[in-house]
Amino acid sequence: VDLSLKEKAYEHLDNLTKPPRSLGKLEEIAARVFAIQEGKVEPYPARIYTCAGDHGVVQEGVSPYPQEVTRQMVLNFLNEGAAINVLCKTSQVDLKVVDVGVKGEPFPQHKNLIQQKIRSGTGNIAIEKAMRKEECLKAIFLGIELASNAQKQGIKSLGTGEMGIGNTTSSTALYCAFLNLSPEETTGAGAGLDNQAIQHKIQIIKKALNLHSKTIKTQDPLEILSSLGGLEIACLTGLILGAALYKMPIVIDGFISTAAFVCAYKLEPKIKDYAFFSHLSAEKAHKQILEKVGAFPLLHLDMRLGEGTGAALALFLLQAAANIFNNMATFEQAGVASGK
Amino acid sequence: VDLSLKEKAYEHLDNLTKPPRSLGKLEEIAARVFAIQEGKVEPYPARIYTCAGDHGVVQEGVSPYPQEVTRQMVLNFLNEGAAINVLCKTSQVDLKVVDVGVKGEPFPQHKNLIQQKIRSGTGNIAIEKAMRKEECLKAIFLGIELASNAQKQGIKSLGTGEMGIGNTTSSTALYCAFLNLSPEETTGAGAGLDNQAIQHKIQIIKKALNLHSKTIKTQDPLEILSSLGGLEIACLTGLILGAALYKMPIVIDGFISTAAFVCAYKLEPKIKDYAFFSHLSAEKAHKQILEKVGAFPLLHLDMRLGEGTGAALALFLLQAAANIFNNMATFEQAGVASGK
Repeated sequence: VDLSLKEKAYEHLDNLTKPPRSLGKLEEIAARVFAIQEGKVEPYPARIYTCAGDHGVVQEGVSPYPQEVTRQMVLNFLNEGAAINVLCKTSQVDLKVVDVGVKGEPFPQHKNLIQQKIRSGTGNIAIEKAMRKEECLKAIFLGIELASNAQKQGIKSLGTGEMGIGNTTSSTALYCAFLNLSPEETTGAGAGLDNQAIQHKIQIIKKALNLHSKTIKTQDPLEILSSLGGLEIACLTGLILGAALYKMPIVIDGFISTAAFVCAYKLEPKIKDYAFFSHLSAEKAHKQILEKVGAFPLLHLDMRLGEGTGAALALFLLQAAANIFNNMATFEQAGVASGK
Repeated sequence: VDLSLKEKAYEHLDNLTKPPRSLGKLEEIAARVFAIQEGKVEPYPARIYTCAGDHGVVQEGVSPYPQEVTRQMVLNFLNEGAAINVLCKTSQVDLKVVDVGVKGEPFPQHKNLIQQKIRSGTGNIAIEKAMRKEECLKAIFLGIELASNAQKQGIKSLGTGEMGIGNTTSSTALYCAFLNLSPEETTGAGAGLDNQAIQHKIQIIKKALNLHSKTIKTQDPLEILSSLGGLEIACLTGLILGAALYKMPIVIDGFISTAAFVCAYKLEPKIKDYAFFSHLSAEKAHKQILEKVGAFPLLHLDMRLGEGTGAALALFLLQAAANIFNNMATFEQAGVASGK
């Protein structure tokens, strides 16, 4: 992104009938979207891809929900009964659901489903690699292709979403591997574990980090993602890379999506200019991780649901920022005196 | 508000297809609106009243903008060129502009203008009372009437907005008087003062606090508001009281609106249950003040514009919370297994 374009955006913003910079981050959003889109601020129409995949590590008892819930929730997404459906409608964001690795049979055809299962859930990271490198690459390429398709269909910005019982375990392992954090400081309650269960989850993550310690030492992003990641996380990694490739703003959802962001960032740091961080998750380590990657979250609502729910709300803020940029009167137009 | 109703709301929310409480403050909003509206969560249609008034203290040089800007911005509101117009449209919130004390002649008639000027700007609080007690009461009653009219017209929730060059000075004086804070710790840049000008503003606020020190010692809310307040602040105080009276959720905008909230709270502490705090302003002392009144702001966007801009964005979050409450599938409906 040519960030010098932000200055041009601010020239316009400073002429609008308000004290300069008084809309704070809303102006910052508008200026960065202007730079990304090279001269306009037009985030809508927007789309969230909610990517679903299962995690072999669930057999270690790291989630309060059974694995079947991944599949059940995908059906709930297609029947429009989930939080992400409601919030996408509220924010007027298009939603597509992607089966990139849900355990079991493909789903019946549905207009909002992209059926691209790469494998039937990952391996158990505590005893094996999550996936082969080829599978990981396939998931990343799928994500890039989703961004490309969105662009072809007139979509102007993207949001990340995910569903996968067990994926806070995988994400936490990725954070530890990439950001040199300990499982003790980063492991949280996920979908709702009690303290004892969190201690168990920490042990499982330690086991996985030990098993893959050689890979982690190499700091090869693809190898680490293949070893500890998830199919949905790899797909979102690709989606973020694809957003940058096709010059689209992308709104990162919460804890799991931020792990995909970290993977994409390790592969190509330039993607950061395209990313907006929707919210500060209630999941324990999210604050520390966002600080570590130099990100500021837009919303502080103690949410910890995933699916893309934070991204859906934050895309609305992008649209609000765009409307400010495009639709406010200037001091001259309105006949308002500007400040000293 | 019968806050025990929140438990009933949470019973429903906990049955929806998401980990319990995983939507954080969005669920908290829904539960409190349920209690306020006694069994439903229906914040829309929503309306913001942006109340405008001038401040005699502007002659002391406390703002970088000339006093005429209050009038010019009211015309800008009516021509739909201001930030509040854009954000109300974005959030689908109705906007009414109220001339409660803009200096000079009444405005030409306009469908979105409520022409109820009580006096032509306040007195200069550094050398006299802002207004007579009768004028202050008139402004409060006007605010209550605005809430009543909104209710009659089918409006389900309200937001506060204001315009008045000089009104951070008045608000800061009110905070000092009501919350026992010093001008040094509470005085900020307002619409954009530099450090030297802030020092001058502090001196003017000190002068006002000295002049009205006897009144402040009594802690009589009406007398303090009459001495240090503004006509638009008194009107918003009434609007907040009226929201409680007519059982409507009310979203408090930023620094100046929070001063009106403090006035209303001092008159009747029960109003707090009806109030939602839209955002943490970039104005210096807002964080400390919100903590002091036990409020949590929904948005952290470094905004400091006023007009109701934060309220407009936050009303959208109330609507998002309502849609979650009303439109998500339950575990049973969706055939999703609930957690252990």
